[in-house]
Amino acid sequence: MRVLAISGSLRAASINSALLRAAARLAPPKMELVLFRDAGKLPLFNPDLESQLPAPVVEMQRAVAGADALLIASPEYAHGVTGTIKNLLDWLVSYEPFVDKPVAVLNASPRARHADAALRETLKTMSAVIVEDACVAIPLLGAGLDENAMIASPEVSGTIERALAALWRAHASRQSPDGSNFSLS
Amino acid sequence: MRVLAISGSLRAASINSALLRAAARLAPPKMELVLFRDAGKLPLFNPDLESQLPAPVVEMQRAVAGADALLIASPEYAHGVTGTIKNLLDWLVSYEPFVDKPVAVLNASPRARHADAALRETLKTMSAVIVEDACVAIPLLGAGLDENAMIASPEVSGTIERALAALWRAHASRQSPDGSNFSLS
Repeated sequence: MRVLAISGSLRAASINSALLRAAARLAPPKMELVLFRDAGKLPLFNPDLESQLPAPVVEMQRAVAGADALLIASPEYAHGVTGTIKNLLDWLVSYEPFVDKPVAVLNASPRARHADAALRETLKTMSAVIVEDACVAIPLLGAGLDENAMIASPEVSGTIERALAALWRAHASRQSPDGSNFSLS
Repeated sequence: MRVLAISGSLRAASINSALLRAAARLAPPKMELVLFRDAGKLPLFNPDLESQLPAPVVEMQRAVAGADALLIASPEYAHGVTGTIKNLLDWLVSYEPFVDKPVAVLNASPRARHADAALRETLKTMSAVIVEDACVAIPLLGAGLDENAMIASPEVSGTIERALAALWRAHASRQSPDGSNFSLS
C-alpha cells in the first residue's frame, strides 16, 4: 500500500510536517508512506492553465494518482485552511484519479476546528472518501515535541499507529470488498 | 478615499474580477478604486520568510496599507475559499496595518455559502472591520454578464453603487466619528 503524506505548512519546523515524518517512520512494512515535499512549488491555481498544466502540477497529480490513499496534516491559519493546502486541492478538483481516493486528516491542534471542518467539507465535495477511523486528533500544538519525541511518546506514536492501521484496513477492504464488511464511510 | 479591490480568482474571464472592474468604473469621483492585479505573483505563504519578505509580498502589503478599505470578490472552489485569496490573506495575518481595516465582501454566487462564510470568519479573526452594509450578494454566476453588461444592468450596477456608497459612509464615519452615528459593525 502506498500512502502520500501532504503537509499544509511550508514552515521548516512545522509540527504538521513533523507529524507526517513520524508517521512515515512508524508505518508498517506493508505500507509505504511517502512525504510530498513540493506543495510550495505549485503555482497558484488558475483554471486557464488547465489545458497546459505547469510541470509541478503534473508531478503532484501523478503522485496523487499513484497513491492508494492520502494522509493530510495541515495547520489552521486565522480560523481557516492554509492557502497552501487549499491551493494544492484546487488543482485536484475534477482530477479524475482523486475521486474515491481514501483520505485521512490528522489534526495536530484539536482546538482548531474551523480548518479541520473546512478541509473535510472540501474533500467530501471533491468526492474523496474520508476514512473516519484514520482521522485522529493529536494535541501537539504547544507540546514542544519534534519528530523523535513524537515517536518516543507511547501516546502519540500509538495514536499515529492506530490511524495508519485504520487506513490500511480501509485499503484492504477496497482490495477485497467481499472478504470484509468494513465500511469506509 | 482609496479602495483596493482584490479578486480571489486568477482566471482571465473571472466574473469576480469583472465585477471588481465594473465597480472601479462605477466608483464615485471621491473614491479611487484600484484593482490589485498581482495576487497570482505571491509565493505560497511560509512563516520562515517573514524575516525577509519576498518582494511581491512587500508590494501587496504596501498596497493594503495604503488603502482606506478593501473590496474582495472571490469564487467558491469545492465548498471552500480559493487557495489564491487565502494565500494572500495568510500573508496579512498579524500585519499591523491590516488590523481595523474596513473590508467589504462581494458574493457573485449567492448560492455558494461555504466560501463566503469562511472568508468572513477569517477576516474577523484577522481583526478586519467587515462593513456589513457594503457586503452584497449579486447573482452573477451563470448570468453570462461581462463587465460592460454589469454596468448596463440597472439592477447590478445599482447594487454595486449601493455597496460602494456604504463603504464610503463607513470610511467617512471613521474620519469624523463625532459627526455620525453610523455603526461599522
